Amino acid sequence: MASVPAAAPSTAHGPDAPETLAEAWSRIRGLSERLAAPLAPEDQVVQTMPDVSPTKWHLAHVTWFFERFVLPQAVPGYETRDERWHYLFNSYYHTVGEMHARPRRGLLSRPTVAEILDWRAQVDAAMAPVLARAEEDAELAFLVTLGLNHEQQHQELLLTDIQHVFWSNPLGPAYDPGLPVPPSRQAPALTWHEHPGDDVHIGADAAQGFCFDNETPRHAVRLRPHALASRLVTNAEFQAFIDDGGYRNPALWLSDGWAQVQSEGWTTPLYWSQDRQEVFTLGGWRDLDPHAPVSHVSFYEADAYARWAGARLPTEAEWEAAADTQAVQGNLLEAGWLTPAAATAPGLTQLFGDVWEWTSSPYMAYPGFRPLAGSLGEYNGKFMCNQMSVRGGACLTSGDHLRASYRSFFYPHQRWQVLGFRLARDLD
Amino acid sequence: MASVPAAAPSTAHGPDAPETLAEAWSRIRGLSERLAAPLAPEDQVVQTMPDVSPTKWHLAHVTWFFERFVLPQAVPGYETRDERWHYLFNSYYHTVGEMHARPRRGLLSRPTVAEILDWRAQVDAAMAPVLARAEEDAELAFLVTLGLNHEQQHQELLLTDIQHVFWSNPLGPAYDPGLPVPPSRQAPALTWHEHPGDDVHIGADAAQGFCFDNETPRHAVRLRPHALASRLVTNAEFQAFIDDGGYRNPALWLSDGWAQVQSEGWTTPLYWSQDRQEVFTLGGWRDLDPHAPVSHVSFYEADAYARWAGARLPTEAEWEAAADTQAVQGNLLEAGWLTPAAATAPGLTQLFGDVWEWTSSPYMAYPGFRPLAGSLGEYNGKFMCNQMSVRGGACLTSGDHLRASYRSFFYPHQRWQVLGFRLARDLD
Amino acid sequence: MASVPAAAPSTAHGPDAPETLAEAWSRIRGLSERLAAPLAPEDQVVQTMPDVSPTKWHLAHVTWFFERFVLPQAVPGYETRDERWHYLFNSYYHTVGEMHARPRRGLLSRPTVAEILDWRAQVDAAMAPVLARAEEDAELAFLVTLGLNHEQQHQELLLTDIQHVFWSNPLGPAYDPGLPVPPSRQAPALTWHEHPGDDVHIGADAAQGFCFDNETPRHAVRLRPHALASRLVTNAEFQAFIDDGGYRNPALWLSDGWAQVQSEGWTTPLYWSQDRQEVFTLGGWRDLDPHAPVSHVSFYEADAYARWAGARLPTEAEWEAAADTQAVQGNLLEAGWLTPAAATAPGLTQLFGDVWEWTSSPYMAYPGFRPLAGSLGEYNGKFMCNQMSVRGGACLTSGDHLRASYRSFFYPHQRWQVLGFRLARDLD
Amino acid sequence: MASVPAAAPSTAHGPDAPETLAEAWSRIRGLSERLAAPLAPEDQVVQTMPDVSPTKWHLAHVTWFFERFVLPQAVPGYETRDERWHYLFNSYYHTVGEMHARPRRGLLSRPTVAEILDWRAQVDAAMAPVLARAEEDAELAFLVTLGLNHEQQHQELLLTDIQHVFWSNPLGPAYDPGLPVPPSRQAPALTWHEHPGDDVHIGADAAQGFCFDNETPRHAVRLRPHALASRLVTNAEFQAFIDDGGYRNPALWLSDGWAQVQSEGWTTPLYWSQDRQEVFTLGGWRDLDPHAPVSHVSFYEADAYARWAGARLPTEAEWEAAADTQAVQGNLLEAGWLTPAAATAPGLTQLFGDVWEWTSSPYMAYPGFRPLAGSLGEYNGKFMCNQMSVRGGACLTSGDHLRASYRSFFYPHQRWQVLGFRLARDLD
Repeated sequence: MASVPAAAPSTAHGPDAPETLAEAWSRIRGLSERLAAPLAPEDQVVQTMPDVSPTKWHLAHVTWFFERFVLPQAVPGYETRDERWHYLFNSYYHTVGEMHARPRRGLLSRPTVAEILDWRAQVDAAMAPVLARAEEDAELAFLVTLGLNHEQQHQELLLTDIQHVFWSNPLGPAYDPGLPVPPSRQAPALTWHEHPGDDVHIGADAAQGFCFDNETPRHAVRLRPHALASRLVTNAEFQAFIDDGGYRNPALWLSDGWAQVQSEGWTTPLYWSQDRQEVFTLGGWRDLDPHAPVSHVSFYEADAYARWAGARLPTEAEWEAAADTQAVQGNLLEAGWLTPAAATAPGLTQLFGDVWEWTSSPYMAYPGFRPLAGSLGEYNGKFMCNQMSVRGGACLTSGDHLRASYRSFFYPHQRWQVLGFRLARDLD
Repeated sequence: MASVPAAAPSTAHGPDAPETLAEAWSRIRGLSERLAAPLAPEDQVVQTMPDVSPTKWHLAHVTWFFERFVLPQAVPGYETRDERWHYLFNSYYHTVGEMHARPRRGLLSRPTVAEILDWRAQVDAAMAPVLARAEEDAELAFLVTLGLNHEQQHQELLLTDIQHVFWSNPLGPAYDPGLPVPPSRQAPALTWHEHPGDDVHIGADAAQGFCFDNETPRHAVRLRPHALASRLVTNAEFQAFIDDGGYRNPALWLSDGWAQVQSEGWTTPLYWSQDRQEVFTLGGWRDLDPHAPVSHVSFYEADAYARWAGARLPTEAEWEAAADTQAVQGNLLEAGWLTPAAATAPGLTQLFGDVWEWTSSPYMAYPGFRPLAGSLGEYNGKFMCNQMSVRGGACLTSGDHLRASYRSFFYPHQRWQVLGFRLARDLD
Repeated sequence: MASVPAAAPSTAHGPDAPETLAEAWSRIRGLSERLAAPLAPEDQVVQTMPDVSPTKWHLAHVTWFFERFVLPQAVPGYETRDERWHYLFNSYYHTVGEMHARPRRGLLSRPTVAEILDWRAQVDAAMAPVLARAEEDAELAFLVTLGLNHEQQHQELLLTDIQHVFWSNPLGPAYDPGLPVPPSRQAPALTWHEHPGDDVHIGADAAQGFCFDNETPRHAVRLRPHALASRLVTNAEFQAFIDDGGYRNPALWLSDGWAQVQSEGWTTPLYWSQDRQEVFTLGGWRDLDPHAPVSHVSFYEADAYARWAGARLPTEAEWEAAADTQAVQGNLLEAGWLTPAAATAPGLTQLFGDVWEWTSSPYMAYPGFRPLAGSLGEYNGKFMCNQMSVRGGACLTSGDHLRASYRSFFYPHQRWQVLGFRLARDLD
Repeated sequence: MASVPAAAPSTAHGPDAPETLAEAWSRIRGLSERLAAPLAPEDQVVQTMPDVSPTKWHLAHVTWFFERFVLPQAVPGYETRDERWHYLFNSYYHTVGEMHARPRRGLLSRPTVAEILDWRAQVDAAMAPVLARAEEDAELAFLVTLGLNHEQQHQELLLTDIQHVFWSNPLGPAYDPGLPVPPSRQAPALTWHEHPGDDVHIGADAAQGFCFDNETPRHAVRLRPHALASRLVTNAEFQAFIDDGGYRNPALWLSDGWAQVQSEGWTTPLYWSQDRQEVFTLGGWRDLDPHAPVSHVSFYEADAYARWAGARLPTEAEWEAAADTQAVQGNLLEAGWLTPAAATAPGLTQLFGDVWEWTSSPYMAYPGFRPLAGSLGEYNGKFMCNQMSVRGGACLTSGDHLRASYRSFFYPHQRWQVLGFRLARDLD
């Protein structure tokens, strides 16, 4: 079985008792440490490209978040572990101070993993009374919940980053050599789920529970008549694109995408072996499953495939309108596969989990969007340029972290996340 | 008076007689050569950065367009001047063959300016019978018109590029030392033009006259209640932003914009002197006119200014809805200033001419968009990623080339075009 | 019998009993591990620039040397630990196979430190019978001795590299916080040691004990009348050069040196604080000792200082002629300071230890030079271009590793080694 | 009186009458303009890599030399053409002021060719009385002669640079399409010219006529017994090296050379066609002459070939000792081929002309070297690092500009000059 224990909220208390903040804290903070546990200290230092952060940096940064944004206000007299660590572990919050340059995160051997784990324990202890108090203080509860959601985001990054670290090593070590392999099964035939076109509402209502600022405000969007593919594009389907010369035909590509293909020499998705028989996973090198969703493709590759297939990518509104009708379930972190798996059923499926789905929508502010006040306004809003919205989470995302309205975003050339896509097409 | 003679269509024939293709050909092709006429051969070779193309490359490329896309089909047996020139002067049409790398355009001393002018004459001669025939052949007429509109786009580029070439030279030569200077006058106070919000139609109806494929199809867009600034942001207003530390305050900037400010060391718009007293123009170094629209700013700077001002940039739909009610007139190429000038009247003004206006809209396909068939499909569609829509033309744009639905597009960091902006804000 | 002189031979055996190879093996191999012992596993992974290698890479590479060049021939049937490790830990021996790119050594978290130490133990065990046999086999003894000298070179690199790693960390950790600080004492006044000029012999006689191929053949060189400074240039003296605008005066610099100063923004030696009051050492940040030799300067800086001082750098022949008369003793690794220290006596001093001394001699083949046969010919000869000879060892060099004829070499821009200089001048 | 020997002195005056400075001025300055005459203005602007300068930059820079170093002192009240041109046309004399960055020389369209020729005429006129006066003023005569030798150096650069410009153009234009082709003839068999080894004197005696400072002082050097190849290595011989896998065998290369081969993808000398049948010359693309000397090879290639051939490159002292016995004649600029040609006779030949010969000697100061006083000290001395001495001039060098003691120098990776080599070997 999967060595990543899931901590489903339902196990901790009755179906009607909502999880307390202290319970959530313990569950989520503990998961970070369990995810790092299989790694040697050496593994936790390395940064193989600027997009990747070292494991121990993730463990520290999420802790800094609480020490910077919660503890000073919530615990008068709280003494920071080391003022200089704020410089090291600030990611991109320019309004709270200077920071260590991102591409140089892998040059830091200190603080060590042990020192960071010790710091985590110190912050855990300091937060305990805060969590209790936050049950009665909505603003404080929001900050804590934001911090825990932030930590869940970094749990996913921790895994995607260590995958890149191990893939960059000619020895190809596995994060977990005993990781179970999803059964390979014929993916159901692709069908098209039609939508007549209409005004729909997308986005989150902040009054209905936690959401990020970039999901708000909920607003109406007019959809055109369209159809969504019932499932994700598979490895076998993407192989056909490659076999047809997809990576060599400029007519299929956006201009920037073609430039990227040329300069990077792309001929397959990231993590595929040159002979296209194997793929590098958190379980090490494995046979490529033709039925599993293709993953680790850029927006450019998704877009080129869609053009080749005579289709297009869905807009984020189209995607959300479909997802809004479904429960958040699928091949998520709790499933323990840690890799995309073939669809198991006909019907509109794989909306949540497996791979983040590229949409055709630039990641932009919703009409009337207001970022969080203060420095936390830097969390999401300042990235609303040059990136594309991705939806639905992946096999490395915690299920309780997702919503239909959840928006993540990446640059169109990025591939190191678990990124795939489904097709859409106009109806008319 | 301005040394760039305008060739207004009305001078060539009566108010009711539409211009023939032959007349348009003569007028537009001749303008290219008149625009290059003040330049020494040496000036026409230089490329000061990858975005810039040498003057003689522009003169050749627009000619290649006809030799590649019109003459082979229209004139059986037409003999190309030199097959190798197709390699040199293809810009980005991968589907018709390989091409010389863009950043190396300035390494080509041959063919000389004289050889290119001779080639232009050869193509002019070969096209003469084609133009006559095209009056009866709508498809051919479209190709010719497309080629002439293409040449008009490169006329503007020719001017913006030579401005960069001269600015890069410590001697600061003027394109035209006798260029008249617009009178400096107090810009009218900024007022807000409100729109209640509603469904509007934007985009071009291809049946109503020439347009580019990226303007189609015409479609409905719902506008939210908003207001547009009556005029463009001025140099004086932008100075206030700088004086207030605008370039030093990360809270005002998109993440990618702030990175750009840091890496490029931006502290003013392009072409300003360090002391912010002077600006480099096609007429050489001049005193900065506080009342003229700020220009040569990136999207990032426009966006940061808007945030600082408590406003936002308009969407392209908001802009087009406003522009659709106005005649295409303003400080355009025909005015002969070749530089932005202060607004002269109250009311919604400066929509056309002066500067291209950054919008908040990523340059994307309209719903149902179909690129032109064949290789000309590479004209616009493949750039629909990573760029922002700009609207309204500039003081270097020919008036007969513009429409309210006209969409141009640039990367958010680019500044060498005549790029400015107006503010917008939500009403609620 | 190959003899590896011990730095402290008296402790291991009587004054007349030469150290056995097994004793040398144990002493030298053990030192590598003792030098790494103060480091956390995290410290041993990081590579802060291409010149730097991770500690664990050094520990592995010197072991690979034996597994690649000694064990296959010496122990029939020897089974390598992992064939893929040869790819990872080959440094630059192209004739024995491909290798991992040098700038990517810091991307390898595996094998871990523990695995490498285990590999070292395996190789130690396999070598035990070989060492005994080598006492009777001169060729084998040479290979073993070469490998041990190679390991001593990497011991020095291990220390210089970890110094760079710790300096790159804003926390400025110390390799050894308890490292003793040399007493600061007034350096003796600089005097000039004259040489009348004459034919001298330099280089090593390979029959007289171990030496590297690049020290051979011993040959005559004609010296001109000259004088050598009695001691190294001090921090205080170099401060005077800086105070006099040394880093801002192009007239003092070689062309390539001035370009380096400009592009890198050099204003002090490496490891100095900006205020020139402190210096980063293996013991952490310390007050700069004005009397200690300046170190971590490039050839360019040494050359510029010499020009400013109206002197020049010595040739390597001048240096060797002087050093040939002296015992190998001074502030070497065994002294335990691990940092340069002020000269203590008048007379020609500091020739060995403290800092490697830049000479004015390009590192070139001696007349009649022949590299070692086979792949070990790649050890030294192929670097005889673009580098300068440095002489005398440093405070991180084992004393028994040095000789007057010993030649090391670095690119003129490099500063991360313990590099300083003494002055020379012509007599006439 | 300073004497600039004419290549064809018999035409200007009797065999015993030395050329006057005015005659030399007219001859040499005129040649610069004749060499540029076949070029269009467009050709004279382009810079295809940082090593290359535009033709018009050369024409201006050599004129700046006189306006900067001669006219202000020699003609009180002389008015410079334009103070800003000093910034543009200073090459590397930091002590006389700031300068335009070398890689940006090709971005300057102004001043135009015509303006520069006009400036040349102005300086010619201003210099006329100075030349007359210099006949009686040794110091002034030296400055003028230095300036004229400087101009001769740039005449060679003008030709090598325009060759690179034309080669970079896919059209491959010829500098002179009517350039005569040297007859291809079997090169004489290579023989070895032995030298017993002895003290020889090399370098120039400044009292014996014009020389550059880097040729002084004349001094004794001890040569070892050695032999020099009778002629240069030919294209056919270099082909054999390539056929034997020379470019693919790391054992033949210096470490930096192999890195260069890998990063640049070198598989032939510069200017060869990929199929190794043709070579690009100032006369355009031509069949490769197997008997002609190989040229446009780097030091690395010369060194690798020598190692492959079981030989070595000569030292500059060995070369000079041999050349000192010969008249300065050969395939020089005056021959009019402008390309290397096969040796025509047995015996030690091709020492002057054809190609500059790489030596194994780093370009260093001779013992006791003193650079020229003042800013002209920047002429040669500051380049005495990282470069190799080359000797003998090439087919683009004026014969009266050369001497046996003449030293030029290039970085070991450079190939755009007319660089070849002859072999040497030790005798023992």
